[in-house]
Amino acid sequence: MPYDQIAPPARLLMGPGPISADPRVLRAMSAQLVGQFDPAMTAYMGETMELFRAVFRTGNEQTFLVDGTARAAIEAALVSLCEPGDRVVVPVFGRFGQLLVEIAERVGAEVHQVQAPWGEIVPPERIEEVVARVQPVVVAVAHGDTSTTMCQPLQPLGEICARHGALFYADVTASLGGNPFEMDDWGVDVASAGLQKCLGGPPGSAPISLSGSAVRRVEGRRHVELGLRTDQDVPRGRRIASAYFDLAMIMDYWGKRGLNHHTEATTMLYGARECARLVVAEGIDAAIGRHRLHGAAMLAGVGGLGLETFGDAEHRMNNVVAVRIPDGVDGESVRRAMLADFGIEIGTSFGPLHGVVWRIGTMGYNARTDAVLTTLVALEAVLRVAGVAVVAGGGFGAAREVYDDAFAGSLS
Amino acid sequence: MPYDQIAPPARLLMGPGPISADPRVLRAMSAQLVGQFDPAMTAYMGETMELFRAVFRTGNEQTFLVDGTARAAIEAALVSLCEPGDRVVVPVFGRFGQLLVEIAERVGAEVHQVQAPWGEIVPPERIEEVVARVQPVVVAVAHGDTSTTMCQPLQPLGEICARHGALFYADVTASLGGNPFEMDDWGVDVASAGLQKCLGGPPGSAPISLSGSAVRRVEGRRHVELGLRTDQDVPRGRRIASAYFDLAMIMDYWGKRGLNHHTEATTMLYGARECARLVVAEGIDAAIGRHRLHGAAMLAGVGGLGLETFGDAEHRMNNVVAVRIPDGVDGESVRRAMLADFGIEIGTSFGPLHGVVWRIGTMGYNARTDAVLTTLVALEAVLRVAGVAVVAGGGFGAAREVYDDAFAGSLS
Repeated sequence: MPYDQIAPPARLLMGPGPISADPRVLRAMSAQLVGQFDPAMTAYMGETMELFRAVFRTGNEQTFLVDGTARAAIEAALVSLCEPGDRVVVPVFGRFGQLLVEIAERVGAEVHQVQAPWGEIVPPERIEEVVARVQPVVVAVAHGDTSTTMCQPLQPLGEICARHGALFYADVTASLGGNPFEMDDWGVDVASAGLQKCLGGPPGSAPISLSGSAVRRVEGRRHVELGLRTDQDVPRGRRIASAYFDLAMIMDYWGKRGLNHHTEATTMLYGARECARLVVAEGIDAAIGRHRLHGAAMLAGVGGLGLETFGDAEHRMNNVVAVRIPDGVDGESVRRAMLADFGIEIGTSFGPLHGVVWRIGTMGYNARTDAVLTTLVALEAVLRVAGVAVVAGGGFGAAREVYDDAFAGSLS
Repeated sequence: MPYDQIAPPARLLMGPGPISADPRVLRAMSAQLVGQFDPAMTAYMGETMELFRAVFRTGNEQTFLVDGTARAAIEAALVSLCEPGDRVVVPVFGRFGQLLVEIAERVGAEVHQVQAPWGEIVPPERIEEVVARVQPVVVAVAHGDTSTTMCQPLQPLGEICARHGALFYADVTASLGGNPFEMDDWGVDVASAGLQKCLGGPPGSAPISLSGSAVRRVEGRRHVELGLRTDQDVPRGRRIASAYFDLAMIMDYWGKRGLNHHTEATTMLYGARECARLVVAEGIDAAIGRHRLHGAAMLAGVGGLGLETFGDAEHRMNNVVAVRIPDGVDGESVRRAMLADFGIEIGTSFGPLHGVVWRIGTMGYNARTDAVLTTLVALEAVLRVAGVAVVAGGGFGAAREVYDDAFAGSLS
């Protein structure tokens, strides 16, 4: 045997995701397989749809999984909604807005960006200006962009899309379950996510939900694939440029017709169902409140150590904080020391923020008091060795205070 | 809690796949996550590449996973190799050849089919005739097509592609690990698979390997995505129409550059690595021999029951047999009874064979004596109730004889 069995080192993943999975999710994923059209399997698929409706806060019938990582569902949404030449408006305030541009361009869309400096959100009125001028088919935005930790308010964008007749796509991969999100109330037509952020699962399955308007758009491009189509399946509109990401076919697979598309990734489905089940059991509001609390504790903690944070404080995501790397400190060597001495992973960053900030996450299973406090005392130890004049006990103390206040508040 | 935790019914999956996963694979998948650029993770990625080189029988450096089900890797191969308008030749002898046509068409290729009746392979000389005339960029074929249980010999096709300067893509999803496959010796440029057939894992991860010629073709269309590209990343050729399936970017992610693309599906990677590790430990030839033995036992067993099989006996896959549904028998009610009374799943079929044959698999973890014999005695019981004049003990006896002969052979 050339290699040993899987035995990963113990890690506390406090980066921007993936984070340590909830052990209950891994347990669910250890269950044996059933056939893809077994009554037990189709029942699990139906339950998964129902559970994710609760998580997305939607009544959308078409709520299911795309078999791939989070960006698989982004591409499925854009390739199914957009034909080549269609106009798409993308507010860009970080790397994941850039990703939407990249995907939309490859789909052949004519992309119009509305940019904001990293660390800010894009003012809705600037977006409306462009939408009014361009009259796009789709407005696509990243809700929480972990590259800058900013959370773009979606409700105004929903209103803008409604006013101008555009479909509204939101990538909620990094925000869902940890920040308020109201798919129906905010007028979002398609939202997609991953499991590996606030939902506490591993990457590899991508929940997605489509409004009635989005379904009509996709159904207007329905071409059942060769070998499955019957005489009733009259092709409609321009064929979607991807077979794997054809949401019309994926809806046929998840729906009553049960038409074979891919072979559903059983184990990832077990995991996705358990992620949603745990959030629904906790209560969506309680889960968001937990992320708010532990995010606030981490923010206070890094402040208590004497570190500065990055970005517009008013529009921070609950679940990740960008910490400025102190002058003269090698950010990567601090990350390596955190990993080597404590088994704790904190994140680096992309593009203009690479080497400028660390990203520290508090999400999913790791949105916990012990995870936050352990990270802060470890960071204090490592930074002191790196020559930073940290406040002794300052991180722990400031975070502890947030918890004490929250506890006092819950008694009042 | 609206739903209970995952607790699937006990099943013995003897269809065309997915089949019951090897418990060791599920155990590997229950390991906790590490970060996507953790040294432990990149080491596991490197080991996974190495192990799958052994499984594919190749020295190809570019051997890695696509994060999705088997058809994700098919699409990644075709969208990365083919530009719109490129000519592609597809031998079609079942549903999975049709799938290649469907995917290649959506990619914008000009597809030329070479068809054979279901139950036969496509004669190589007919393929060469078309290749010589069309001069395609790519010849794409399903190696084993479970819809008909036929296994197309690939070596002659490799020679044809070499003679005419075409790249050779083979979908080995259903065959790999259970039937001989020699990627390098047979001149296959790109091969891709899934885990859920002979490799004994769950669906959701798709191993792929690219020859040097295929890599050059893909690298000729290299466009590093927005937000990651540097001044050195001069765009080349026509941009690949999918960001998720852009093999040039996926190679940058798995390679030394470690450029972020998707977030690798950690748990599926653990499973894929374990699938390959188990096959390599058993020995590729031994694993193929095991599939040959249990496939032969199942074939003899259904014959011993008095049932007829479908398709050209000379070109059968080792791991699945198509059994003709006896006249007057409702195939679906037999399948339901097998599931209800014994927890055993056997397969239905597609298209022209729907209602005509059952497909019974012997693959991966379920290529085992007890699985074969249990299926045969259960089938006897169910068929008798359905009014079929089965030979009492005939299935068990005939299969048992195959095992006895093999055992005697191993002593001689």
